[in-house]
Amino acid sequence: MKDEFKRAQILLEAFPYIKEFHGRTVVIKYGGSAMTNPRAKEAFIQDVVLLKYVGMKPVIVHGGGPEINKLMSRLGMKPVFKNGLRVTDEATMEIVEMVLVGKLNKDIVTWINLHGGKSIGLCGKDAATLVAERETRYGDIGYVGKIVHVNTEVVDLLLDADYIPVIAPVAVGENGATYNVNADTAAAKIAENMKAEKLILLTDVDGVMKDGKLISLMNLEEAKNFIEEKVVEGGMIPKLQCAISALEAGVRSVHIINGGIEHALILEIFSDEGIGTMVVERR
Amino acid sequence: MKDEFKRAQILLEAFPYIKEFHGRTVVIKYGGSAMTNPRAKEAFIQDVVLLKYVGMKPVIVHGGGPEINKLMSRLGMKPVFKNGLRVTDEATMEIVEMVLVGKLNKDIVTWINLHGGKSIGLCGKDAATLVAERETRYGDIGYVGKIVHVNTEVVDLLLDADYIPVIAPVAVGENGATYNVNADTAAAKIAENMKAEKLILLTDVDGVMKDGKLISLMNLEEAKNFIEEKVVEGGMIPKLQCAISALEAGVRSVHIINGGIEHALILEIFSDEGIGTMVVERR
Amino acid sequence: MKDEFKRAQILLEAFPYIKEFHGRTVVIKYGGSAMTNPRAKEAFIQDVVLLKYVGMKPVIVHGGGPEINKLMSRLGMKPVFKNGLRVTDEATMEIVEMVLVGKLNKDIVTWINLHGGKSIGLCGKDAATLVAERETRYGDIGYVGKIVHVNTEVVDLLLDADYIPVIAPVAVGENGATYNVNADTAAAKIAENMKAEKLILLTDVDGVMKDGKLISLMNLEEAKNFIEEKVVEGGMIPKLQCAISALEAGVRSVHIINGGIEHALILEIFSDEGIGTMVVERR
Amino acid sequence: MKDEFKRAQILLEAFPYIKEFHGRTVVIKYGGSAMTNPRAKEAFIQDVVLLKYVGMKPVIVHGGGPEINKLMSRLGMKPVFKNGLRVTDEATMEIVEMVLVGKLNKDIVTWINLHGGKSIGLCGKDAATLVAERETRYGDIGYVGKIVHVNTEVVDLLLDADYIPVIAPVAVGENGATYNVNADTAAAKIAENMKAEKLILLTDVDGVMKDGKLISLMNLEEAKNFIEEKVVEGGMIPKLQCAISALEAGVRSVHIINGGIEHALILEIFSDEGIGTMVVERR
Amino acid sequence: MKDEFKRAQILLEAFPYIKEFHGRTVVIKYGGSAMTNPRAKEAFIQDVVLLKYVGMKPVIVHGGGPEINKLMSRLGMKPVFKNGLRVTDEATMEIVEMVLVGKLNKDIVTWINLHGGKSIGLCGKDAATLVAERETRYGDIGYVGKIVHVNTEVVDLLLDADYIPVIAPVAVGENGATYNVNADTAAAKIAENMKAEKLILLTDVDGVMKDGKLISLMNLEEAKNFIEEKVVEGGMIPKLQCAISALEAGVRSVHIINGGIEHALILEIFSDEGIGTMVVERR
Amino acid sequence: MKDEFKRAQILLEAFPYIKEFHGRTVVIKYGGSAMTNPRAKEAFIQDVVLLKYVGMKPVIVHGGGPEINKLMSRLGMKPVFKNGLRVTDEATMEIVEMVLVGKLNKDIVTWINLHGGKSIGLCGKDAATLVAERETRYGDIGYVGKIVHVNTEVVDLLLDADYIPVIAPVAVGENGATYNVNADTAAAKIAENMKAEKLILLTDVDGVMKDGKLISLMNLEEAKNFIEEKVVEGGMIPKLQCAISALEAGVRSVHIINGGIEHALILEIFSDEGIGTMVVERR
Repeated sequence: MKDEFKRAQILLEAFPYIKEFHGRTVVIKYGGSAMTNPRAKEAFIQDVVLLKYVGMKPVIVHGGGPEINKLMSRLGMKPVFKNGLRVTDEATMEIVEMVLVGKLNKDIVTWINLHGGKSIGLCGKDAATLVAERETRYGDIGYVGKIVHVNTEVVDLLLDADYIPVIAPVAVGENGATYNVNADTAAAKIAENMKAEKLILLTDVDGVMKDGKLISLMNLEEAKNFIEEKVVEGGMIPKLQCAISALEAGVRSVHIINGGIEHALILEIFSDEGIGTMVVERR
Repeated sequence: MKDEFKRAQILLEAFPYIKEFHGRTVVIKYGGSAMTNPRAKEAFIQDVVLLKYVGMKPVIVHGGGPEINKLMSRLGMKPVFKNGLRVTDEATMEIVEMVLVGKLNKDIVTWINLHGGKSIGLCGKDAATLVAERETRYGDIGYVGKIVHVNTEVVDLLLDADYIPVIAPVAVGENGATYNVNADTAAAKIAENMKAEKLILLTDVDGVMKDGKLISLMNLEEAKNFIEEKVVEGGMIPKLQCAISALEAGVRSVHIINGGIEHALILEIFSDEGIGTMVVERR
Repeated sequence: MKDEFKRAQILLEAFPYIKEFHGRTVVIKYGGSAMTNPRAKEAFIQDVVLLKYVGMKPVIVHGGGPEINKLMSRLGMKPVFKNGLRVTDEATMEIVEMVLVGKLNKDIVTWINLHGGKSIGLCGKDAATLVAERETRYGDIGYVGKIVHVNTEVVDLLLDADYIPVIAPVAVGENGATYNVNADTAAAKIAENMKAEKLILLTDVDGVMKDGKLISLMNLEEAKNFIEEKVVEGGMIPKLQCAISALEAGVRSVHIINGGIEHALILEIFSDEGIGTMVVERR
Repeated sequence: MKDEFKRAQILLEAFPYIKEFHGRTVVIKYGGSAMTNPRAKEAFIQDVVLLKYVGMKPVIVHGGGPEINKLMSRLGMKPVFKNGLRVTDEATMEIVEMVLVGKLNKDIVTWINLHGGKSIGLCGKDAATLVAERETRYGDIGYVGKIVHVNTEVVDLLLDADYIPVIAPVAVGENGATYNVNADTAAAKIAENMKAEKLILLTDVDGVMKDGKLISLMNLEEAKNFIEEKVVEGGMIPKLQCAISALEAGVRSVHIINGGIEHALILEIFSDEGIGTMVVERR
Repeated sequence: MKDEFKRAQILLEAFPYIKEFHGRTVVIKYGGSAMTNPRAKEAFIQDVVLLKYVGMKPVIVHGGGPEINKLMSRLGMKPVFKNGLRVTDEATMEIVEMVLVGKLNKDIVTWINLHGGKSIGLCGKDAATLVAERETRYGDIGYVGKIVHVNTEVVDLLLDADYIPVIAPVAVGENGATYNVNADTAAAKIAENMKAEKLILLTDVDGVMKDGKLISLMNLEEAKNFIEEKVVEGGMIPKLQCAISALEAGVRSVHIINGGIEHALILEIFSDEGIGTMVVERR
Repeated sequence: MKDEFKRAQILLEAFPYIKEFHGRTVVIKYGGSAMTNPRAKEAFIQDVVLLKYVGMKPVIVHGGGPEINKLMSRLGMKPVFKNGLRVTDEATMEIVEMVLVGKLNKDIVTWINLHGGKSIGLCGKDAATLVAERETRYGDIGYVGKIVHVNTEVVDLLLDADYIPVIAPVAVGENGATYNVNADTAAAKIAENMKAEKLILLTDVDGVMKDGKLISLMNLEEAKNFIEEKVVEGGMIPKLQCAISALEAGVRSVHIINGGIEHALILEIFSDEGIGTMVVERR
């Protein structure tokens, strides 16, 4: 009987979070090893469906790196990066889109459906959800897009009908061109547009580190300082920038967590400490 | 980190039940030591609010024995029982109603509200939810009622608006008379009328016992046999009769559990084994 | 045939009032001899159901004085009053609540149902409709509450579903404590919160008197002057204060009438003169 | 004060009828002296608006005899009747329509609006509410129509939006032709189609008479016998036929009353005896 | 096959207009030879139903000149005009109303219904849609009305239920009097009140002419100048005044077209050039 | 002016079809040269958006042949066909899915959005819209699916919100496997499930031919005979089988038309003759 008691206890510990986030939208950037490691993937899918059933409204935005390179390599193409951005000519864009939209997106949808959710896969072209223009900050890098407009009408429609939307980070230009957009940024923009409760970025590190220690909780100002004072570097900089942008637009909290940890999502949402870094406006 | 993993694991173990019972009505007879023992009571209230938040629709029907006797004794009145039923003259009926409706009912409501639910207290007089006539099987025992009509219109209205209804087992006669009705029966009749998923009867024993062992799962026929063959006796007989009646009217499962065990409700609903006896039509 | 014509004539005289108050909320404080005199009581219930059927939305808030004292005396307790307020220790509060909520409230509900209405009984604890804190103006008088928050969500829900809500003046504290609140004040606060058309206070006198004559109509300023200049005294002062507060919060008219007159409600609402005192912002 | 009591008493006497007919549709054929006598007319309009405000759904179908003849005579045309039906050539039909639709119909609408109702005037051409074909029972009598189809979609729409529809007895043919239809029949057909609670025919006599005495209440079979045994004759025959047809189609009661009596409508509906003849399926 | 291609081509040319005006309200003043010439009339009715089916919301306001004079002459009455306005004594008003409401209005309704639309005929008296007072600018000219209030609640209700409302320019006074109002003005006022996309005035000339040439497109300022500089005269002045008033109240464009041209409506709406004059705020 | 008249004429000729098919669902299989020929493609997209704007509910199911082979060939894979079905091993299935879902589907969506529609791209995996099992009629041909279940819940949701759904013929197995399904069959099954008004199959031939002549209209029995008597052969056989299946399931008409003809869709729907073959249950 002891075990059973523990079970009840744990369910009740999760309860304050269930209550607090009931009916709230949670935008999750899904990528990295959480996508490639089969166990982490299955755990992630279970977590998403659980979130939905206990009353939250999860929206998934996914990435896709390795699969894209794999297909390019099979076709004898060579990925080129510039300032961490994939130089995307038309042929590359076609590959990117086919892999993201035609393979990974529907694969996630299928897994969610198999685990008891009702999921629909979209990309930014659907109902022109993500409209982009050419990103020119680093010169001509082709069909890399900068999101200029977000329209979540169809996402809202699907959420209200109890679907879990899964969105591939492919945007459309005013003239119909296809753009490759950064998945973290796409997730942040969608969260901003929907005034989401949470934006959760799954990465392959444990969160924001300082002096070798994980920062569990930080506020907007600290996030800005960390960038300015170069406490963080590399890929963590754009992630913190996403966090700052989202918080300033009204998202209540941004979480940077290690998607490689099984059930990272539940562990982060359903406990006080969490397992990664939570950034809020004020703490 | 180990503990955190266990937490996620347990949440996920609860998930199939959350999924299965999503949106379903669960009528719970609340009484006995679950009402008198403060820790069991708080645990019960927490469980009810949790059920609501993870998507079920709990309806509480409560009893009230000891409190009634206490007030009667303060007033110098002496409880009289006949065939296990309280002989209820007009003065006694007044006490019963004041205690059930004016004290216990609103007390449960307040506790639920304090724990994050939205609750409303009703009795069978409200919108004539429970209509009774005089119970005459055992001769004249006064204002003891036999339920002849159940009207859950207002209960449905409240559930649809996300309230947790708490119902005192006081019924109204066609002419406006007040009747004392058995709480188990009232819960069963309400469950039948609403085609509830579950009827859960909290008692002070662990469930149906046979040869000193708890029966975890039994079917309708076995329940009938247990009564006929006198495997069960005393208070368990009317409880099994309630179960039989409910199942025959379309309720999917009836649970007889020990309300004295903390979090009995969650332990019963969110595990395969459960902690008491589950009766189903067919197993 | 003459009588028949008179009948039509009278129905038509009532018509302008029916038209004017169609769809409007009328909060009625029910108490005094209208509750204790059986004929006045039956007439009152008929009036309430009639108001509902001709298109108004009555909400009843009731008092309960004599019944409370009766039960206290049976229990050997002695009512203590201070500045007109009942000193309410925990034991007294329990009695007050049992009588108001468990006896009088559901009795009114039953009568309304018997006369063709659909009624639900509530107290301030239900959905935390009335939240109070300790009244300390006159020192420690125990569980006497000052209403600090009114939430009529469930009242609105019930009105929209064509129920007649009956509310006992028992409030809940932030921590779950039970408070005894003044019924006139509770009615006024509810009327204010709902922006009611009318607040009607049933008393045992004919209305506001000046120089031995009934004042049929007065305005806000006159009401204030009457208090200041001590034209009124005793129990009429808090009633006029309720009227002032209600009018200032947007209630369109407040009526102080003699509930001992049979059908006082209809006589007041369905005629120009009325039978008591009507207070309006401006006349 | 005495008068005031009487007032309340009478309102309460009307109450059982208000309750019984709440939300029910009442189709009223308006014609005869109730239309020509200014006082009876004003009383009728008041009654209709009152019915609406106390919760019924009145639908008016009106006639128009004398006005039609007046205009015909001004134009030097001579009314011709055959078997009580107006022989209606094209020129006559034009006059009939202009008077009914362009004069009387909108006049009734205006009066209702002035008395506090919201009214819309229709004829059978609007949304093809009344579709007729040529009546040939008595040979060729021109544009006299037999109703073959009733479509009350727009009437329902207007009732649901709280309008009082006023319908002129002009029907449309499949090919767009205009037909003059009998107002009693049109009212009956509309009542049948809407499964109305009541069909009320205003005439210039007190009701169905037998041996010089008014029959207050009769059933379907008696109505049939009265026709067969020639207890009734002349214009009362088609009225009883309308009643029989309506009752057989599900209308709950048909009333034949003297529209010349002021407030005949209220007097009939709001009393047990009534002032005319009520025909029901079974008594 | 050639013809078929042309067909598709033309449908597609109409498409931008269908898209642009989807769901928009178009108020059309129908009068002149479009009403008297049978071919132009049938073409007009077809156009109106087509507009409805491709997604617009047409509202028709009609005139009626010649028919009124015809009936007056049959009755030996002589039309008198003053400043272009019909001097309207009570007898004349009766004729005007009977012809407009009782003949022309329902005739248009019938034609629309025969061509596949669902139409309802109204006048300004229905639900007091058009409230007028006596026009006194030119001295006493009797029941000629100046519109002082427009209430399109019932028009909106009918449009939402997919009906095509047809409105006769007869208004009601505060006291119930009947007023003859100008159809162009009535159409403009209704368009203004509904914030219509278009107001289309059918006339018997091709549009606004200057130096013998048709002006296809003009703006608000030009319209004002044309009046001031007397480029236009006679009946075109009040039409341009209607246009100016409508545009200033938020109507998006006003069209003055020759109703004698078959399918003038479609030709004007579904092409760039149009066939008459379009007035817009700015061009 | 002549041209303008013709335009109006043609719009009016289309009108009966617009009226007849208003609010009806039309499932269109889009494939062949209509997809590869840029002019035919643009014309098709225009037609689809036009259908939507004039009130129909188009649903697109597309094929994708040549693009699939192109990518396979770039990857050095060789298409293998057996009984006209693509032998689909896992690697081939991946290519098929990426091309259909990740390239062609979203390309169509983008074109529709650019032409003024609101479109969403789906495949059979989304919300498990198309569930298939392995097709084994011709031995093991890999991931070629036979549709066993169709669930159009999300398609209905999108249509009701005015979206144009575009569906790729990729189905999901019970266990999550991906299946390649025939686009004609998928379109037919969806049409059957939605009780569509029309199923339109775009092909590269003009329709069903007999003795070198196009059959414009045929009925169900003739379709069966044509197959049995081998009047048709090759790819036309499964198309006629789709037609038969759809008609038997309640689809009102099936059209087999040449998608290579520009605006084939409009030409077929908006004329009596049409340009291809229409199959109906009875003619």
